Amino acid sequence: MKKNETFSIAHIAVAVPGLQKALQSVEQVLGLKAGHVEVVDEQKVRLQFVEIGGVRFEFLEPTTSDSPISKFIEKRGGGIHHLALYVSNLEQKLKELKEKGVPLINETPQIGAEGCKVAFLHPKAMAGILVELIEKS
Amino acid sequence: MKKNETFSIAHIAVAVPGLQKALQSVEQVLGLKAGHVEVVDEQKVRLQFVEIGGVRFEFLEPTTSDSPISKFIEKRGGGIHHLALYVSNLEQKLKELKEKGVPLINETPQIGAEGCKVAFLHPKAMAGILVELIEKS
Repeated sequence: MKKNETFSIAHIAVAVPGLQKALQSVEQVLGLKAGHVEVVDEQKVRLQFVEIGGVRFEFLEPTTSDSPISKFIEKRGGGIHHLALYVSNLEQKLKELKEKGVPLINETPQIGAEGCKVAFLHPKAMAGILVELIEKS
Repeated sequence: MKKNETFSIAHIAVAVPGLQKALQSVEQVLGLKAGHVEVVDEQKVRLQFVEIGGVRFEFLEPTTSDSPISKFIEKRGGGIHHLALYVSNLEQKLKELKEKGVPLINETPQIGAEGCKVAFLHPKAMAGILVELIEKS
């Protein structure tokens, strides 16, 4: 990976037991309103975005009890779940990271929301932060 | 609080057991280098910043076993710890939030890093996210 490569934040995801209550609290504290509700069946979530300080926060509510978001909420009660960063060439990036021995959850691109190519690194890969890489289309 | 108030992100804090290993992993994955080490005795932490996609990530290593960061690491093994937002008048903001019944950890401003006025809201206040408000000086 080139040292001068830049990364931009796609979103910061927050796992919540219920979107409505979570977004009411965001509005109460920050006075900011959320966008419309989207359902992503493949990821078993409903989601809404709120922009805070120029960064998109993606609030995720699980739609099934076996979704990874449900498990996170059971274990931790919710909160910031992952950091999503845009990369220009996901396949190449995953290849480079694998060669360096960086632990990956997805060794090849998966299809995420809006048909984007996405892959998750293992939280051990980067200081305990769950990182999602998204190919910017 | 006015609806049109804007918030900017001061930093996103990440709790880590050791700065060196954490920042090596950030450099390995993103090719980004951290700034110099700072010690904040009052908060019982050593810290280093890395800018990712225009947002400052503050990596925090506990300096004592009784620091809140130590407890977080023991419980969760590290990861994103809190979201810090700038506000223009912290005392006024805390008063407004208290009147609305928003649960606060600090009801009055505390002195944080670099002598700034800071206060933490309870994670229940905003969707399970631990929020630190910092008065921009």
